[in-house]
Order: sequence, then C-alpha cells, then structure tokens
Amino acid sequence: MTTTSPRGVNVRHLTVDTVNPSLLNVQYAVRGELAIKAEAYRDKLKEDNHGLPFDRVISSNIGNPQQLGLDQPPITFTRQVAALMEYPALAELAPHAFPEDVRARAKELQSEIGSIGAYSHSMGVPFIRKNIAKFIAERDGYSSDPNHIFMTGGASVGVSLLLNILIAAPHSGILIPIPQYPLYTATLAQHNGSAIPYHLDEPSNWSTSVHEIEEGIQDALKNGITPRGLVIINPGNPTGALLDEKTQEDVVHLCEKHSLVLLADEVYQDNLHTPDTHPFVSFKKIVRRMNSPIPLVSFHSISKGVSGECGRRGGYFETCNFSDELLALIYKMVSVGLCPPLSGQIGMDCMIRPPKAGEASYELWKKETDTIHEALRQRTKLMSQRLNSLDGAACVDSPGALYLYPQIFLPDKAIEAAKLAGKEPDVFYALSLLDETGICVVPGSGFGQKEGQWHYRLTCLCPGVEDYVSKLENFHKGFMAKYA
Amino acid sequence: MTTTSPRGVNVRHLTVDTVNPSLLNVQYAVRGELAIKAEAYRDKLKEDNHGLPFDRVISSNIGNPQQLGLDQPPITFTRQVAALMEYPALAELAPHAFPEDVRARAKELQSEIGSIGAYSHSMGVPFIRKNIAKFIAERDGYSSDPNHIFMTGGASVGVSLLLNILIAAPHSGILIPIPQYPLYTATLAQHNGSAIPYHLDEPSNWSTSVHEIEEGIQDALKNGITPRGLVIINPGNPTGALLDEKTQEDVVHLCEKHSLVLLADEVYQDNLHTPDTHPFVSFKKIVRRMNSPIPLVSFHSISKGVSGECGRRGGYFETCNFSDELLALIYKMVSVGLCPPLSGQIGMDCMIRPPKAGEASYELWKKETDTIHEALRQRTKLMSQRLNSLDGAACVDSPGALYLYPQIFLPDKAIEAAKLAGKEPDVFYALSLLDETGICVVPGSGFGQKEGQWHYRLTCLCPGVEDYVSKLENFHKGFMAKYA
Repeated sequence: MTTTSPRGVNVRHLTVDTVNPSLLNVQYAVRGELAIKAEAYRDKLKEDNHGLPFDRVISSNIGNPQQLGLDQPPITFTRQVAALMEYPALAELAPHAFPEDVRARAKELQSEIGSIGAYSHSMGVPFIRKNIAKFIAERDGYSSDPNHIFMTGGASVGVSLLLNILIAAPHSGILIPIPQYPLYTATLAQHNGSAIPYHLDEPSNWSTSVHEIEEGIQDALKNGITPRGLVIINPGNPTGALLDEKTQEDVVHLCEKHSLVLLADEVYQDNLHTPDTHPFVSFKKIVRRMNSPIPLVSFHSISKGVSGECGRRGGYFETCNFSDELLALIYKMVSVGLCPPLSGQIGMDCMIRPPKAGEASYELWKKETDTIHEALRQRTKLMSQRLNSLDGAACVDSPGALYLYPQIFLPDKAIEAAKLAGKEPDVFYALSLLDETGICVVPGSGFGQKEGQWHYRLTCLCPGVEDYVSKLENFHKGFMAKYA
Repeated sequence: MTTTSPRGVNVRHLTVDTVNPSLLNVQYAVRGELAIKAEAYRDKLKEDNHGLPFDRVISSNIGNPQQLGLDQPPITFTRQVAALMEYPALAELAPHAFPEDVRARAKELQSEIGSIGAYSHSMGVPFIRKNIAKFIAERDGYSSDPNHIFMTGGASVGVSLLLNILIAAPHSGILIPIPQYPLYTATLAQHNGSAIPYHLDEPSNWSTSVHEIEEGIQDALKNGITPRGLVIINPGNPTGALLDEKTQEDVVHLCEKHSLVLLADEVYQDNLHTPDTHPFVSFKKIVRRMNSPIPLVSFHSISKGVSGECGRRGGYFETCNFSDELLALIYKMVSVGLCPPLSGQIGMDCMIRPPKAGEASYELWKKETDTIHEALRQRTKLMSQRLNSLDGAACVDSPGALYLYPQIFLPDKAIEAAKLAGKEPDVFYALSLLDETGICVVPGSGFGQKEGQWHYRLTCLCPGVEDYVSKLENFHKGFMAKYA
C-alpha cells in the first residue's frame, strides 16, 4: 500500500506487517482488552446520562494500591523525605512541617546525591546501594555486595534486561510458572526467546513442584530448546503462594543439575498475611546456605509491599555468583539507559531504611504500615472465603502478594456463548463482569492455566471490601443462572 | 568451565560467551572507559594523600547540568510543584512556602493524577499529554493529537522502543549521522539492526547533506541492507549544528522517495545560543507544511534545555502519520513497561507549561531560565574561540545543544605512543587529559569520525569556564609539545 505525496512520490506505508514480527507476538493482558474497555467506561461515566449500570470503575486488574478509587495512602515518611529532596529550601522555609529524622535523612541523602535533577551512577546512587546491601545482609544473615546490586526503574526493567541477556539464540528457553505474571512471556516474545512452561499445582495451594519443572526441561530439550534460566515468583503472582524452604532447596539443586540461572521475582516479599507461620525466605539465603555456585538474580520493587509507590518506578536486582565480565556487561547495558529515576531510588532508600523505634517518625510509620498489612490480610481472607463458597467457583486462600486467582467452572452454555462472541470463555466472563459491575479483572488466559480450566485474577486492594465482594457474588450467581 | 557444587554437581559457568552475542557488540562511550576511570579518580580524591595532579574531577563527558561540581540550579517552579505533588499536605502546613500559581498548578495536577505513587496511563497522564499537544500546536502552528503522544522515562527509552519496532529482520538498517550520539548504534547493536552511516560535513559547520544520506542508502542497498529509518539529531549531538528549513524539506523529500521513517531527535530544541538568527524549526512543522505522508517520530526530553532535569527521567515522543494499528502496537509495548515515572511526567508538564507573565512565579522563572541560556551561550562562544585558536585543534562554533566537538590534529609520535599503549589516538589523548587535569571528555571514536581524524566531545556546562578552558589549553599545548 502506498500514498502519493504532493510531490508525486509513492510512499510505502509503514504497517504492522513490515515491522519487527517478534513484537506482534507480545501479549500483556494486565493492560489489554479489559483494561482498555475499562478506561472507555471511565470516560463514559463522566457524561451526564451515561446509562451504565454502575457509577464507578474498579481497576482490580493491576496491583496499583494508590490509584484513584483504591486510595491506599502513601507512607508519610517517604513522601516527606522526597518533598525535601525536590525542594531542599523547605528545610528552612517550613522546618515545622518535617520531623527531625526526616530532615536528617534528607540532608544525608543530599550530601550523597546532590541534586535529584542530575543523572546518578547508572547502577544507582552508590550510597543507596550500600544501604540495600545492608538491608539484604540483615534479612538473610549473609553478606551482600553493593557492586552486585543494580537499581532499576521498577523490577520490570531488570527482568527485561536479564531475559535479553540470557536469550542467546532463537532456541534459548526460560522456564516460566503457569500461571505467571505475563511480563515474562511478553518479554520473551519481544526478544525471540522461548517460554518453557511448568505448571503450579492448584489443589495443593498452587505449590511449586520440581518434578513439573524437570518435565518442562525434558520437553524443551526434546523440542530442541535449551533451558537457560528458571523464573520463580515468590510470593506468587497471580497465585499468592509461598515456597517452603525444602522446595527452595530442591529448586537450587535442580538449577545446579541443569546449569540454570535462577531468576527470583521476590517483589512481594513484604506482602505476607501470616508471616509468623509463613515467613518469606529469600533465594539468596538458600543459595548462600547451600554454598551453591548457581547464578542467581533476585528482583525487588517499591511498587508492592506496603510502600505501593508504583508511580515512582523504583526497584533493584541483586546478582549472586556472576563473574566480573558479566557484571561489566550488565553495567554497560544499564549505562545506555543512563540511570534509574531518582524518585524511585529515594523511595527505595526509604523503604529499606524505615524509621527506627525511638525516632520521630517511627510511631506514624508503624501505624501506617500495620494498617495496610492488616487491611490486606483481612480483605484477602474475606474475599477468598466468599469466592470459595460460591457454586461454580473455587478460590485458594493466599498467604501472600496482592491477588487472588479464583477458578470458575463455566457451564457449557457460557462456553458456547463465548465461542459465538469470538472470545475465550474466561475473557467472556470477565467482560460480562466489567459490563455489569464496572469491576475490571484479568482473565486467566492472560496468566496461563490448564486446558479447559478458567480463572481470573483480581487484586485485594479495594477499600469497601463488603460492597466489592457482594458485586462479584451477585454477578457470578447471575452469570451462572443465565447460562445454566 | 564448571564449578562442582557441594552436592557434587558440575555446574557450567554462565560466561559472556554463552549470553546474547548481540549485546557484546553494544558500545556506549559516554559512560565507557573514560567515565569509569574518572569515577575511580573521584574516589581516590577522597584520600588524604591522593597524589593526583588535580583536586577535582570535571565530568564533561555527559550532558548532566545539575551534577555535583557543575551545579546548574533547577528551575524553582518545577521543584515547588513537584514537592507539593510528593507531599500535598504542605499546601496546608506551609502555604507561605509556595507562590499562589504553584499551589494552583499542584492542585490541578492532583485532581487529574491523584497520587504520584500510582501507575499512570502507560502512555502518560492524559491531561499532561493534552498539554504537550497544546505546546506542540503553539510551537508549530499545526495541530497535535494527545493520543499520538507517548510519554517516556527520558528520550532514550523512546528511541530504543522505536528502533526495536523498526528492525524487522537482521538486514534492516537505520541511517545514523556520523558523528552521532552513541545511543543509536548501541541500541541497533542490541536489536541486531544495521547502522547505515552518513557523514556530517565539518568544514560547513557540521551541516547535513541529503547527498551524503543518499550515498549511505545506495551503499546499504548494495550490501543487502534495507534502510527503514533515518535519524536526524537537530540541534546536533555532539556537533550542536542546526538544520536550515531547506535541508529539512530535502530530508522529508528523501524520506518520501525511500519510504523511510524519520526519527527526529529534537531534545536540544530549547538549547539555542542565537535563536534570533538560528531558530529551531521542528520536523513536525515541516512534514505538516509539506503535507507529507511520511511517518515521523519526534523525541523530546526534560533532561536538556534549561530544565536539565536528567534524574527525573522524563520525555515524550510524538508520532505523525502512524496508523491506528501501529499506535496500538506501540501502546501494547509501553504497557509492558507499565508507565513512565510520574516525577518525569510532572517535570514535563512544568517545562511545557511554564509560568506566564503576570503569574506569581513568572519573574523568578524568567530570571532563572535567562541566566542559564546566557551562561551556556557565553561559555560555548568562549570555549569554541579559545579551542579554535589553539595550534593543532579546530573547533566549530555551535549554534545549539550543550556540547563542542573539537577536532585535534595529533602528531605522528602521539599516534605511535597511542598504538604502543593499545589505544585509539583520541582515546589516548582523552585519557592523558583526564590523568593530568581531571577533566573527563568523550573521545571522538565514541561518536564516529572520518578515518584518520580525531575529535573529542565536551560539554559547555562547567561553572568556572576561564579556569576550565585554561586547563584544556595548557594540557593541549603540553601534549602537542611532548609528541612534537
């Protein structure tokens, strides 16, 4: 196809058929069809006679705690430090507006960083990386080297880079849990890598089985695909499951056996609803305790936890057992992107160095974080119980993360109706839910599920949980009755 | 190579030979060998008896105006708005610390954005994109559509994405000016594309010649490479040159003839030292005025100009003549990265919607921006004159951007000494400059230059310009004498 320019030149169109074909295979359901429709509804709601059967859209498709309508408040300490970093004159202009420890923290960061309007070191401010190393060492009881830590603009950036590095040939594969967070398959498609799926086990609360992973490896090898890395999301997304230490050790052993790089997505490490009985144990601790030589990358983020600072774009990854040559390669690649946002780096420093007991900001910080933890715990419990007690639905109670991933048992008539509409059955269900209630979830096909099963992921972040669950229940009952 | 684990398993090492080979070809001199050595010197200077012949390192390798030692102050308006966005309670706690228009702006942004700790729309906050569209329309006199604008975490992110999209096969090529900003070759290497070089003409003040570009295209075609896009950096980096409208029209005509996507890197559009005689004209204006159907992408950033807010990571690209399908593809790709940092988005809103005459912040804003413009103009002029008058150096006076790119005429003995040291002659020169003066520049080989010519790029950002130029002069004279 061409267009003739006013100068009589036939200009060939740039079309999706002529661009990088790998990108056409990228799928990212979290912000896909459902999210786009939800946005359109949000616009429509601004009209006087919108005619919609709901008066607000609830974006349960994405773990975005501070978004409008969910309104999880930010941690005051973080925002106070950040405001002083933006405009240091405030320390003089309005000293009473900031507790003493906040002013001291900002002063300390300013002396290390200078202006937050300057590029930092491409790996992140050295002082903040030292603080992260201390945080890791205290968490795990094993040392951490600031020069093995790369700060990023959110964990996604790091995941994308590491996958880009590991995909060495069109037949390189990365083991991905099913269900998974679709960043992994999207990024693999972008970089021409192969996703090697291994299934998590729903009946045993979405547990990870090394036998499933081993099967995935054998299937991949049969198909001429070389496994290079293994992704473990712990706590799980979308499942919320937490690995036990025995399984973690088995995973490390498996990585040794197959010389796999272990990619540990640990961004939900601070989202635990029953930390006394189900504590988080990092893969760094396991690898060090086992004295294992496997290369490990652990990802963390300020977007989740009780921080919820998604918009700042802050994260880091720590490498373990990487050679100096590889670290230099990673440094070179991050330097092309210049540096991670300073707002995210400062958010990270505040998250991993919170106020201590006795400091001026401690009481408020404690209250704020306890409140968020407790609200998430209660909502998750209530929602999973109520969803689980519905006919035609089953929901694993999750010990961590921000989500639930209920299974829905759809009647044949619903599946036929979906086929007629040209949709996957779970997409059809989720679209109906959005159309009727304004609640936007992500269909299970966006995360992966066993053939013939249907799920959806929803966040446990809404403020009025009772009203929210009632809407989900009423819709589900109506849907099941309609297609019975 | 393997390591035996404590469990007796032989674990193959992850080495640079086993990772993605494309990444080994990535080169990014701006933060390369020189910058790494400069960092080491900076650390050494903290020691009591450092024994170095200088007492500070001047990082002239990167356009980073607010870095320690350069200390270009941020625009107060931007930082005040940003501080209120971080901690909205300040409007009540310290109203006297903020002018009225700042409080009004923050309130307006808060009502559109909500918390800056939430992910925004993946393309950027719709309200801010509307403001950008207005800014573009006022600049060019042609309409702009907010839905064709994608906000990014700095211009680099957008460049990387567009190159990734355009590289459709191993033999896709992108036309790149020589000298160039090495982001382009680095990103092409990463995505397995081919850089098709075209030379800028130093004797005519680094002008762009469509004949050179045409020659590049013909050479590429002979070598089986399909040109897909043309990069123009205007004002130029590292040259500071500005295209005239006739050349811009010729470029658009050439893009029509060869169905090329025009990638206009216009991040220095506000860095003009003689705007009355050499004004910036956007390619958007030219394309619209010519009613051309060529696909155009224009990149902008808050890191340069007088904003200099590198650490916020803010930028946008505007697409022109892109189909809905392509826009959907780009949207899908940016959604995988979730959203650009809110700090950068707010910085962009402040940059393209500065205070207006009569508003409370206007006088200060005017004074601050005038001062930065004037200082840059004076420094650029003085530095280019002084460097140009040196024996064995020639420096084109630049009408824009933040850099100079002097040519150095190295004696044979210096070239031999470089060879003995295993370095390119310009790298050898730049390393000597760093060793003797603490001034870190980037050798011309990092940007590209004609065979047998040697250059370096340095920024015009230092505060004490007289002292800075004297150091450059003295070093140059000494170097030339040593190898005469």
